[in-house]
Amino acid sequence: PIERGIEVFEHGDNAISRGNYRHFMLKEIHEQAAVIAKTLEGRLGDGHVMTHIFGSGSGSLMTDVRHIQIVACGTSYHAGMVARYWIEKLAGIPTQVEVASEYRYRDGVVPDNTLFVTLSQSGETADTLAALRHAQSHGGYLASLAICNVPGSSMVRESDLSLMTHAGPEIGVASTKAFTTQLVSLLLLTLALRYARNGDDEMQARLVGALRQLPQLINQGLALDGDIERLSSAFAEKHHALFLGRGTMFPIALEGALKLKEISYIHAEAYPAGELKHGPLALVDSDMPVIAVAPNDELVEKLKSNLQEVRARGGELFVFAEENVAISEGDGVHVLRLPAVDEVIAPLLFTLPLQLLSYHVAVLKGTDVDQPRNLAKSVTVE
Amino acid sequence: PIERGIEVFEHGDNAISRGNYRHFMLKEIHEQAAVIAKTLEGRLGDGHVMTHIFGSGSGSLMTDVRHIQIVACGTSYHAGMVARYWIEKLAGIPTQVEVASEYRYRDGVVPDNTLFVTLSQSGETADTLAALRHAQSHGGYLASLAICNVPGSSMVRESDLSLMTHAGPEIGVASTKAFTTQLVSLLLLTLALRYARNGDDEMQARLVGALRQLPQLINQGLALDGDIERLSSAFAEKHHALFLGRGTMFPIALEGALKLKEISYIHAEAYPAGELKHGPLALVDSDMPVIAVAPNDELVEKLKSNLQEVRARGGELFVFAEENVAISEGDGVHVLRLPAVDEVIAPLLFTLPLQLLSYHVAVLKGTDVDQPRNLAKSVTVE
Repeated sequence: PIERGIEVFEHGDNAISRGNYRHFMLKEIHEQAAVIAKTLEGRLGDGHVMTHIFGSGSGSLMTDVRHIQIVACGTSYHAGMVARYWIEKLAGIPTQVEVASEYRYRDGVVPDNTLFVTLSQSGETADTLAALRHAQSHGGYLASLAICNVPGSSMVRESDLSLMTHAGPEIGVASTKAFTTQLVSLLLLTLALRYARNGDDEMQARLVGALRQLPQLINQGLALDGDIERLSSAFAEKHHALFLGRGTMFPIALEGALKLKEISYIHAEAYPAGELKHGPLALVDSDMPVIAVAPNDELVEKLKSNLQEVRARGGELFVFAEENVAISEGDGVHVLRLPAVDEVIAPLLFTLPLQLLSYHVAVLKGTDVDQPRNLAKSVTVE
Repeated sequence: PIERGIEVFEHGDNAISRGNYRHFMLKEIHEQAAVIAKTLEGRLGDGHVMTHIFGSGSGSLMTDVRHIQIVACGTSYHAGMVARYWIEKLAGIPTQVEVASEYRYRDGVVPDNTLFVTLSQSGETADTLAALRHAQSHGGYLASLAICNVPGSSMVRESDLSLMTHAGPEIGVASTKAFTTQLVSLLLLTLALRYARNGDDEMQARLVGALRQLPQLINQGLALDGDIERLSSAFAEKHHALFLGRGTMFPIALEGALKLKEISYIHAEAYPAGELKHGPLALVDSDMPVIAVAPNDELVEKLKSNLQEVRARGGELFVFAEENVAISEGDGVHVLRLPAVDEVIAPLLFTLPLQLLSYHVAVLKGTDVDQPRNLAKSVTVE
């Protein structure tokens, strides 16, 4: 039997009160700088990420990993999709991501030395837990790692390794700070895997520096709150929206669309921007606003021709772009600027305005922001 | 320089006339039994699929394949997603599928002995072609295989191997017969890979038998045309729809939603059924019909609880189910029965009612079925 310490609830009395915020969701959005700082605490070394932070033996295990299988549901699945790009690019390890309810029933192939990673805020998500058990009983995995917000949850107890996200209690049903702390945790995993293979290098030192600056950057992003509140009035009457992104911004677009669905009941759907011409462009008219998440110039150049097509069909455009990106406001084109940032960190920054957008639209529509209809906080049934 | 024969246009004068059909799309839907028979012609051996059908040297190459990377756009991407399940389950080869415009810009990892497979009706899809060139110039792939409907197209000329889908000219912008012949071609690839590894076995003999029966089964499926036309009137006034499926039926749900988007301009979105509770359920009310693709009992049991939640929120349900599946018509629950069929073949059969549904809805709405707004037949620009 494994020895486990007592888990102390460390977030104080404020964690379950709304304080001065109108909704838990808004409070939780604004807590992100602080909880991300907590997620990073004690996990960054000098120019690299500590490799033993996932539990006993994780330092040497990181060296053995040759493949990664990530399994999650909903918002956590979107975090996993971002991680796939990060891990393949920065650690060179082939990575698959799958929705837990699909993974469970698929006769997939498990390559040698695969690390099985689950993501769940509660650690009790029924399908993710069942996927973990399925993976363990069908064998073939090197080890299991739970990235989770609740110490002592089933997922953490049943996994070989774990990393706590330290987001504190999340009361709003629509996940916000749990998502961004998952992203930070997955970036820690990515960098730990890279360090285990490469030792120190300049890229890691740069990214560790960027992680240390992250809480401050998050607060800069959240300072856009007023601008986004003004923008949101253009949405409250809409019944549809398309979110476009490329690369790591595609899962961020998916997450932005999911937030809008969950709390404002607007039918928002995300596409990788390059797929627009392969079908969804037929939907675009003046009733279908298009939101584009465009961190940098390389992607914006490709995006611009897509955006012109949207404008030509009467679709209103909302572009979230870095401050230095060459794209202009104009008739039917709204541009919201974010600080310039390392492209690896960008998914974290660009998540914020999309959270705020869904929040303000929901407030305008008068929906129940913290308890949207039909949804439960933790999906503990299949 | 490679010697290439002259390609003869083999489909006769009827191929570019509508004949007695009101639209090319309807004609092309009804041609599927015949063109699938053509796709199978000369490719099935005695109890197995021929392994040399992909071109010179493909017989021995099939034995060397250890990983597969499929790249495509739009409808072809959905065919690739089905193939992933088939190849992993039936040939035991880890398979990744990616949208071409995403693959091109991602720094992915190429495992040893990876076969690079592109899918495109025209063989000129800009992003898919660029992905092929990117894969070739960045090296590391065992070989490239194009599954394509146009002999002599750029994709076929630039690939090491190819398999023609023999769908004949497809005039309707929304792809129908090109999709189902791609599925048949991908099943041929799956079975060729299995034969190259295992030799003959009972499963292959059974599936080869099922493939031989496929044209007849397709015609049985298309005989539902009248029933689906009646069903379609319930859709014409809707602005939204959710399509649900699990396993190989998830990409079929995606394809059904895409068809409805493309030609009827209804905002239809597909989800793996298990993800419903993780967000999209918030959208469900009496304005959001839900279409479920439920081939067999195992999946239906899981689906039923999802469907009850949809009904409880006032969502109208349309279930496409095999004839023996225990699910009943009722208030707000429409059930359309399809013939019982081997689960491997089911994605082909279940595609048909979804094609017919989108067609009839578009006709009722009076949209331009063959030339939907904003879309081009072949997307030859990025």
